[in-house]
Amino acid sequence: MPTDFALRRLQALLHEQIPLAREMGAEVTAWGPGGLEMTAPLAPNVNHHGTFFGGSASALGILAGWSLVHLLTMADGLDAEVVIQRVAVRYSAPAPGPVTAHAHRPDPSVWQRFVATQARFGLARLRVRVDLLCEGERVATLEASYAAKS
Amino acid sequence: MPTDFALRRLQALLHEQIPLAREMGAEVTAWGPGGLEMTAPLAPNVNHHGTFFGGSASALGILAGWSLVHLLTMADGLDAEVVIQRVAVRYSAPAPGPVTAHAHRPDPSVWQRFVATQARFGLARLRVRVDLLCEGERVATLEASYAAKS
Repeated sequence: MPTDFALRRLQALLHEQIPLAREMGAEVTAWGPGGLEMTAPLAPNVNHHGTFFGGSASALGILAGWSLVHLLTMADGLDAEVVIQRVAVRYSAPAPGPVTAHAHRPDPSVWQRFVATQARFGLARLRVRVDLLCEGERVATLEASYAAKS
Repeated sequence: MPTDFALRRLQALLHEQIPLAREMGAEVTAWGPGGLEMTAPLAPNVNHHGTFFGGSASALGILAGWSLVHLLTMADGLDAEVVIQRVAVRYSAPAPGPVTAHAHRPDPSVWQRFVATQARFGLARLRVRVDLLCEGERVATLEASYAAKS
């Protein structure tokens, strides 16, 4: 599990080194055995219909998935850069308020295989599912693939 | 073909009603028979590796595709709202500079079917391909599906 210090460092990285994450107001709002949650308010992410812009939603999901993999990778002592490779987003409903991205922690067996592959070959890929929620309802789902390279 | 006035109205809409598009510095930089180009500078879209943030790239592609469908829809006199339904992005290379999203105009037969379906049922879907380029090289491709509802 990542420490509180690791979570604070992640939040600082997001806001100091990724200006769009700061402009979006993206904040890590929860962390637990199930995964990581990141939330962004509506105002900086609104579109001309008064709902959450689809591009903001995809960016929030990509950030949440990246943050999950980054934290898990660091917690396991892997010295690897995590980069996005692919993402697929399905939008199911407009989001009239703040959006929370819940990035699901991979199954332990999947994670162990990822760690072993990365340590052996210096490169491994991981698929992460992210649900995007607004006012308790799912508004989009995201499947993102990340590569960890050392 | 959309008029210069329509292009200026689109640019105003993007910057006045979608704050993230303004923060990204997204500008329509070309329009022609092949489609629409939208460009964003690196600085507001940079990540901690000094390259274009993947979430910015997906948002730029979504905006470019949306703008293409919005302009074509208006030019054909359809009174319809265009919304994103799905998007799939493949990242192929890091982008160390400004990124241009080239949204490809659909084939005339595909477009005519879309217009006829929309006019008849009040709802039609269209798939748009967007190439993301940096310094002349492709850095990502995007397949986005939009719905037009009246």
